Amino acid sequence: MNDIGRMKVEELDTPVLLLDRDALERNISRMRDLAAKAGLKYRPHAKSHKSPVIAGMQLAAGAAGVCCAKLGEAEVMAASGVPDILITTEVVGRSKLMRLMAAARQSHVAVVADDERNIAELAGAAQTAGLRLDVLIEVDIGQGRCGVQPGPEAARLAQVVAGSRWLRFRGLQGYQGAIQMTAGFGDREAQVRQALGRLMETAELVRKSGIEVEVLTGGGTGSSIIDGALHGYTELQPGSYVFMDSKYRGIEWPGGATQPFETSLTVLGTVISRPAPDRAIVDVGLKAASSDHGPIAPVGLAGATYAFAGDEHGHVRFEGGRCPLAVGDRVTFVPSHCDTTVNLYDRYIVTKGGYVEDVWDIAARGRVQ
Amino acid sequence: MNDIGRMKVEELDTPVLLLDRDALERNISRMRDLAAKAGLKYRPHAKSHKSPVIAGMQLAAGAAGVCCAKLGEAEVMAASGVPDILITTEVVGRSKLMRLMAAARQSHVAVVADDERNIAELAGAAQTAGLRLDVLIEVDIGQGRCGVQPGPEAARLAQVVAGSRWLRFRGLQGYQGAIQMTAGFGDREAQVRQALGRLMETAELVRKSGIEVEVLTGGGTGSSIIDGALHGYTELQPGSYVFMDSKYRGIEWPGGATQPFETSLTVLGTVISRPAPDRAIVDVGLKAASSDHGPIAPVGLAGATYAFAGDEHGHVRFEGGRCPLAVGDRVTFVPSHCDTTVNLYDRYIVTKGGYVEDVWDIAARGRVQ
Repeated sequence: MNDIGRMKVEELDTPVLLLDRDALERNISRMRDLAAKAGLKYRPHAKSHKSPVIAGMQLAAGAAGVCCAKLGEAEVMAASGVPDILITTEVVGRSKLMRLMAAARQSHVAVVADDERNIAELAGAAQTAGLRLDVLIEVDIGQGRCGVQPGPEAARLAQVVAGSRWLRFRGLQGYQGAIQMTAGFGDREAQVRQALGRLMETAELVRKSGIEVEVLTGGGTGSSIIDGALHGYTELQPGSYVFMDSKYRGIEWPGGATQPFETSLTVLGTVISRPAPDRAIVDVGLKAASSDHGPIAPVGLAGATYAFAGDEHGHVRFEGGRCPLAVGDRVTFVPSHCDTTVNLYDRYIVTKGGYVEDVWDIAARGRVQ
Repeated sequence: MNDIGRMKVEELDTPVLLLDRDALERNISRMRDLAAKAGLKYRPHAKSHKSPVIAGMQLAAGAAGVCCAKLGEAEVMAASGVPDILITTEVVGRSKLMRLMAAARQSHVAVVADDERNIAELAGAAQTAGLRLDVLIEVDIGQGRCGVQPGPEAARLAQVVAGSRWLRFRGLQGYQGAIQMTAGFGDREAQVRQALGRLMETAELVRKSGIEVEVLTGGGTGSSIIDGALHGYTELQPGSYVFMDSKYRGIEWPGGATQPFETSLTVLGTVISRPAPDRAIVDVGLKAASSDHGPIAPVGLAGATYAFAGDEHGHVRFEGGRCPLAVGDRVTFVPSHCDTTVNLYDRYIVTKGGYVEDVWDIAARGRVQ
């Protein structure tokens, strides 16, 4: 093999966000297989990767479209040619409704709602834009965040949507993020059954009122295997499976197995100081890896743990106090929370077999509006 | 006054990072006055704001230059015409040393070091580039991060620098970040005295070996008033004073006063859901405000507290359970940690009297390398 012109990963300046292409592709195939086996559609959450390239790979693997958490992400995906988008968070305010209509002219864009006045404003904006907008009612199935309570109020809002000439009622969204990382499979299954039950009962109520409920959408990477078996959702919304962060990685799958997705996303850092025998300081701090799910995990260093030490620094300490690292050594870390770590970077350095293969823009980074 | 063409702050899409120009200017003047009264140079830390515009305002207010935490920040500042830069973190690795030399050709750039091999590599890079590089030895005065221990080892490294034809020994850096936010003034003063004492003793040792120590640099916003009185440093490195986050805001000044810097940086969010009587959900989550110093603080809402609720959501709850907010209402928040919050955004929306006055790029955002 000719190495001329190929850059080795260890030649990169750090901190740098690395994406292992083979692992990414295997993860995408695994979720495709899981959904295919369950006979369910899936709509991966693009808030995790914020990359039209990865969205394209997911679509090529049969995804029905993508989810976006924010309108700004949906704009990036629509502009990149993603044909079918669900915005999983309520879109509020006159300026955003106009932007929503512009995006809905480029791609098929559906949105969730949980408020009657917001629904009226969506209808007004759609009327002005001369289009018919797909709307799903968000139901709170246990997370205690957005969404109306399961039952009659959800059914009433479905009626409001269905009664508008400018809106099309598509179904219900119910997402319970709090249970996605429940480690034990049995516990998680019981929680998923309970949450999904609330959504299905509400769907039944809506149907009894004479309105078709075509879509029940929700779920995540952690619940995907259970959602696939229960057949409550018509469409799954997994996000983290493409990367698998350290917080998610250890959760159990049926039969005592570990979940099948592998780490594809890492942060590479460098030892910048060895000021004392028991510690190494790396150039990875709060601005290079998110801390909201706890410390990041060093890879391939027995007995090593990491602790954040400010915006630009981290400690790597070793069990027993003996630190084998020297200034200039590279250290690989698995993020504890991929979504918020990805949001710190402008690009993925895509690697294959220890070489840099490609660079992909994180085009929707920072698109919080 | 003519309002045509002027945009009101409440017309902005959210979440959005707002910078109150008047408050910013007052903060910049206050630090100028503090340093002038103490008769000390000051070199504000640009890692907090990452903005050449704000750096320019600080320089116009008499700052001796700026500090940067990372080479990537220094490159942005040098390219923007900032004439004097100190990189306060060790710069390691061949590629970065080449970049450092390129920056040092544009502006006066000094760097800290704490490792003999790194010093040799700095000398080699400077020789290749045909320039003489200013180097300061970093001393660990209590933080337990980078930096050699106070005493003989620091003096030895100073000798190594001073002995190189391609390097110029400028002095010592000692920064104790851990004590900057000690709330009580007396406690903080005792901690600062102890930390600064270590640095001054080390400087004495270096001087005894026949080497001039021109610069003693360090300190932060919290210690600035004490550093100013003690006259140990020749140059102060305050960063957060321009913005004043909620974590810093309450610390005590001499005589029981509160520190004099005011909040200039806020995040404006919108209520996107009112799903239950006791809670409002806003569009400000982990991707719109950093969580590493705890929850952000709602402004002007009696009895309100905020809790992060995922990447894109936050709860606002009210004492007693009565929530006066409606969907679409705007809520202003004070970040708990300015530096890491700024790093999430691409621009400041600069406001004056409730109107948008300007937009400033956060040009060094994400420059972690």
